[in-house]
Amino acid sequence: MRNLIDITDLTTEEIDQLIATAEDIIDRPEAYAQVCRGKQLATLFFEPSTRTRLSFESAMLALGGQTLGFSEAMSSSTAKGETVADTIHTVSCYADIIAMRHPKEGAPFAASLRSEVPIINAGDGGHNHPTQTLTDLLTIHREKGRLNGFTIGFCGDLKFGRTVHSLVNALSRETGIKFVFISPEELKLPDYLKENVLERNGLLYEETASLEEAMPQLDILYMTRVQKERFFNEADYIRLKDTYVLDPEKLVPAKEDLCILHPLPRVNEITVSVDDDPRACYWKQVKNGKYIRMALIMKLLGLKA
Amino acid sequence: MRNLIDITDLTTEEIDQLIATAEDIIDRPEAYAQVCRGKQLATLFFEPSTRTRLSFESAMLALGGQTLGFSEAMSSSTAKGETVADTIHTVSCYADIIAMRHPKEGAPFAASLRSEVPIINAGDGGHNHPTQTLTDLLTIHREKGRLNGFTIGFCGDLKFGRTVHSLVNALSRETGIKFVFISPEELKLPDYLKENVLERNGLLYEETASLEEAMPQLDILYMTRVQKERFFNEADYIRLKDTYVLDPEKLVPAKEDLCILHPLPRVNEITVSVDDDPRACYWKQVKNGKYIRMALIMKLLGLKA
Amino acid sequence: MRNLIDITDLTTEEIDQLIATAEDIIDRPEAYAQVCRGKQLATLFFEPSTRTRLSFESAMLALGGQTLGFSEAMSSSTAKGETVADTIHTVSCYADIIAMRHPKEGAPFAASLRSEVPIINAGDGGHNHPTQTLTDLLTIHREKGRLNGFTIGFCGDLKFGRTVHSLVNALSRETGIKFVFISPEELKLPDYLKENVLERNGLLYEETASLEEAMPQLDILYMTRVQKERFFNEADYIRLKDTYVLDPEKLVPAKEDLCILHPLPRVNEITVSVDDDPRACYWKQVKNGKYIRMALIMKLLGLKA
Repeated sequence: MRNLIDITDLTTEEIDQLIATAEDIIDRPEAYAQVCRGKQLATLFFEPSTRTRLSFESAMLALGGQTLGFSEAMSSSTAKGETVADTIHTVSCYADIIAMRHPKEGAPFAASLRSEVPIINAGDGGHNHPTQTLTDLLTIHREKGRLNGFTIGFCGDLKFGRTVHSLVNALSRETGIKFVFISPEELKLPDYLKENVLERNGLLYEETASLEEAMPQLDILYMTRVQKERFFNEADYIRLKDTYVLDPEKLVPAKEDLCILHPLPRVNEITVSVDDDPRACYWKQVKNGKYIRMALIMKLLGLKA
Repeated sequence: MRNLIDITDLTTEEIDQLIATAEDIIDRPEAYAQVCRGKQLATLFFEPSTRTRLSFESAMLALGGQTLGFSEAMSSSTAKGETVADTIHTVSCYADIIAMRHPKEGAPFAASLRSEVPIINAGDGGHNHPTQTLTDLLTIHREKGRLNGFTIGFCGDLKFGRTVHSLVNALSRETGIKFVFISPEELKLPDYLKENVLERNGLLYEETASLEEAMPQLDILYMTRVQKERFFNEADYIRLKDTYVLDPEKLVPAKEDLCILHPLPRVNEITVSVDDDPRACYWKQVKNGKYIRMALIMKLLGLKA
Repeated sequence: MRNLIDITDLTTEEIDQLIATAEDIIDRPEAYAQVCRGKQLATLFFEPSTRTRLSFESAMLALGGQTLGFSEAMSSSTAKGETVADTIHTVSCYADIIAMRHPKEGAPFAASLRSEVPIINAGDGGHNHPTQTLTDLLTIHREKGRLNGFTIGFCGDLKFGRTVHSLVNALSRETGIKFVFISPEELKLPDYLKENVLERNGLLYEETASLEEAMPQLDILYMTRVQKERFFNEADYIRLKDTYVLDPEKLVPAKEDLCILHPLPRVNEITVSVDDDPRACYWKQVKNGKYIRMALIMKLLGLKA
């Protein structure tokens, strides 16, 4: 039995297969419409995340499966003092596969030890969110035709943004990628990622505080939210926040085939006017999130079209 | 692509077609049991409304489709500062059609501008609730065999009751209808409806404070809740509330084929003892709400039996 | 039309039939996978109970049916002052069968009077929870091959534990059962059960405060939670609580074919290390809860495989 707790649980070959399956689903959805007939996905969200939960549920339904679950941790059993492991064990007696989000890091791993069915980590605290990373990889593959040989910029909060860390990790296993990290001093990528992941793998990277300077060389731009509460003082926040807001003007020097990504939700770090630019790929990314989850559910259940 | 935001988005011909489809569904449900196979309805309720949400979900399931969604606005994305338009855009990347309720007037319309799939307004503040109006029209049609040539009384809170305003609007496009508005002075139908809708269309109407006087002439009686908080002072409320409580005694002078409607939920404005009177049509109305929503979902998705 | 409000609504013959159906479902699940096609189960939980709700939903989905409902009583209709009977009546206009949990004793019975479809009581306050009892009976039958001729111990809170009361009631209709009630003085089985149920039926029973002394003679041990708030003072709680914690050491003198049951959730009254003992049957019990609910839904809807 397989789980997906961390993106590195999957080999690059497995990721390539998932992407291939997802792309086949996009081309021939009807071939997959009954693959999960009679199967049940439980979405157990101990903290709310409408976007991720609905993406999983929609994926399962599009495979002909069924869904059940809860969307916040007010479950009476937890209130009665039940452990998360027992709750998961219980639901694993009903459902065929579980997608689980929990505010505590490591909770999905702990749960997987007592579950009788595969567990997918749908986000654990600031730690892992592997299906977001798979979504990002599928989108890059569809837009660029490959997962290597490009320059990718990450912009915004690179210190706390788990989607950034996870994607950097995943891409570090590919070749010919140049990373550009665009952030204020306070929100730079953690050293352990630079040292243990990038440098160890001999990957090129640059760090800059200027989105405008970085823009011309980018093939892919991965935007993230800059959250006010990450700053030490309001003055710094106000000084910096507009620097990292993507608008049509900042896109003037960008490549014609730039691919703009964002894990969403956005607050104001990409203006709505960018949505109509053909380089804006974040709505495609939302759709890809459904398709890659369909591929993942099939893989973990051992099902084929 | 079509949305249903306001009842006037539909022509009277379209309403007639929806009613005809709903009546065919009632007669031959099995012919519709697979119409929405492989389709997903998202019910996005930014404020709770169990009755309306379950009616939509039951309708979609009875068409062989699937449902997903949320039932209150605690969604983390909204909490993270996402706009309603972005939330709807996201869900429209997953689902085939969206039924949406929001406390703010105009939110469904704003959302429909960014949605990739049809939006049904399932209630926006005190503003519109077009599927309730369709439910009322279907029920009148089934009970009377037509949408014109009758005397209809509206009783209770005619000032704030959006279901009343919407049904008056819809019926004002038909012919040969006489309206009787029964309410305390404080809760009379707004002037703009009398002037712009009724008088402009040359429709007959009366206003009275007495349900008992109005009763004998009515073919249809549309009851509504009189909410305590609508009154300026408690004395007025106590003086008036019982006047507008329908009980078996008040029904003595009523026609034998009177059709009693209520959008529900009721508090005490119709006593439970009226439920067993064959003229009480409000439980049939609840069932009709499911059938008309089935017809509407099919229409907006362009599907036929 | 049949409802299940109290376990005594079912004859012992009907319980035997439900157990037989459930065991056939376990053996041949595919024969039941479409039995409820086109049918809808509403799960109306006026207080949260994730475990019970998901068990019902999973059961209905495994029968090829569909589910809808709510998981807490924040429903706007109730907030607007609607009675539970009206809420149930409304939902009974949409769904084919209703599983309902409510904090007030008697609410499911009251609701059943106005419902147009069968009602299953999924727990009403401290009163009844008949599908838990059916679950317990199925598990005993599967583990022992019969519902009679054994010694069963009930341990923990026997005063307030409704699952204990209900199972004692159900087993009192069988023959050749010896009951052993293991609890602190404060939490003994109520006299009315001893007098009206056990003694009236001429059943053997013992009472003891010592789990260790009782252990060797037991064929079945039914553990329950001992809730701190049941004690008059903390000193008593601390003195007593460990006495009723089942761990591997306490199991040393137990029979080799002892069957350990627990309605779950557990807090710490069974240590996790017991889970791997082959005599621990409480996870099987969870699975059996799904199968017996499948059998019950079929019975109340009048459906056969």
